[in-house]
Amino acid sequence: MLIQFLTLFPEMFDGPFAHSMIKRAQDNGLVKLETINFRAYAEDRHATVDDTPYGGGPGMILKPEPIFKAVEAIQAQAATKPYIILTTPQGEIFHQRIAVELSAQPHLVFICGHYEGYDERIRTLADRELSIGDYILTGGELPAMVMAEAIIRLLPGVLGDPDAARLDSFSGPEGILDYPQYTKPADFRGLKVPAILLSGDHGKIAQWRREQALLRTARRRPDLLAQLALTAKEKELIESYRLARADGQPDFASEGREYDEPD
Amino acid sequence: MLIQFLTLFPEMFDGPFAHSMIKRAQDNGLVKLETINFRAYAEDRHATVDDTPYGGGPGMILKPEPIFKAVEAIQAQAATKPYIILTTPQGEIFHQRIAVELSAQPHLVFICGHYEGYDERIRTLADRELSIGDYILTGGELPAMVMAEAIIRLLPGVLGDPDAARLDSFSGPEGILDYPQYTKPADFRGLKVPAILLSGDHGKIAQWRREQALLRTARRRPDLLAQLALTAKEKELIESYRLARADGQPDFASEGREYDEPD
Repeated sequence: MLIQFLTLFPEMFDGPFAHSMIKRAQDNGLVKLETINFRAYAEDRHATVDDTPYGGGPGMILKPEPIFKAVEAIQAQAATKPYIILTTPQGEIFHQRIAVELSAQPHLVFICGHYEGYDERIRTLADRELSIGDYILTGGELPAMVMAEAIIRLLPGVLGDPDAARLDSFSGPEGILDYPQYTKPADFRGLKVPAILLSGDHGKIAQWRREQALLRTARRRPDLLAQLALTAKEKELIESYRLARADGQPDFASEGREYDEPD
Repeated sequence: MLIQFLTLFPEMFDGPFAHSMIKRAQDNGLVKLETINFRAYAEDRHATVDDTPYGGGPGMILKPEPIFKAVEAIQAQAATKPYIILTTPQGEIFHQRIAVELSAQPHLVFICGHYEGYDERIRTLADRELSIGDYILTGGELPAMVMAEAIIRLLPGVLGDPDAARLDSFSGPEGILDYPQYTKPADFRGLKVPAILLSGDHGKIAQWRREQALLRTARRRPDLLAQLALTAKEKELIESYRLARADGQPDFASEGREYDEPD
């Protein structure tokens, strides 16, 4: 896969892409990452990429020409049709199922805005407009890195077998939060690992994990529950949990921490 | 404000924090950013930070000791009580109103996980568990950078007046998408700027922008509309738009691009 980033700040990508999983994926030839500074496509001698908005108002708006020309230069050289993504707070909210979908593309281009926004006509270049969430950032660079990381880790060969085998939250049609995980020591300052995890009974452990994942999802992200295919017994478990809670608030909203005493 | 990042990959932060708005905020003494590699707090001579999960399963789990000790070292040196954030896909979804809330803290600490997950007991350290969205990343480094950027740009003095004056999407109690913006040229390859923006009539321009913002929100993010305080006329505008659309899908879902012909 080839991923290109159109940005005014190519140096921002150095740290995140030079380490860990993304570095290994590049070293192994599984993905090629390139940054392109679209200021190079500005036409005037000051290399102007932005200007004031028509109709007034504060801030600067990215001009259409430099980004159109940068995209056209990419398209002219591309072996396959590049899929062009505009990073914008007005876009569709990125989700794991979009990462899965985009991981099948041979060539992605992220347009990373900066300043106040894009000239509306730049939107006509995009196959898709994406946002990573309802919060305001100064540019599309970090969102593009986040989306690229989510996509790259799905490419065949990028994760080792043990990791790839693992069913992640949000991966399947079932969005469910992870069950609690524990590692050594079994007793850390009096905080003990639940006895069932030390029992060696794999059937019971699997059932406990499923129940804990469901209860955690019910507690923290009740919005995800609606999509789950639950057995009658699982529905009963969640219902009894709901009845036991008078306030109905997710735990993190009420106290910001949670430690379920091991049973 | 002091922001510290507990991470196994401190070098990942170099690029994003050495440029643009975040660099200026540091240069101007408005925020101090520090990375701390919690591997330095591991106890054995191999500096082990992770181990296999109790109860079986693939992947490695971050051990409690190194992160507890790193947090305790921070707390021992801190002038004010640090507010500790655990980055995790099981957390509350980050939002602009959380950024506003956190921007009032004098000292934030982000714990950035890597590998399969945290030992459950690490959660007891956190004042808050946050996720940036429903997608899977390899670590908490990019999410911590995203949240830090959203928070830093809200600190007094970080943005210049023109930018600060601008009402961002999601900032107020009203979450609404931005209206279309245009800059020069007025005619770009036949794509024209809407005539009203060239009219000089500021009252009409303000009304057009409000209507366009509402229509864009109705089209792309109908989930945001419920929270808005709308006038009777605005409700009518949205209703007539809804009636005109038989499929009821947001535009980007149906065709992935949108260009409203200027009126």
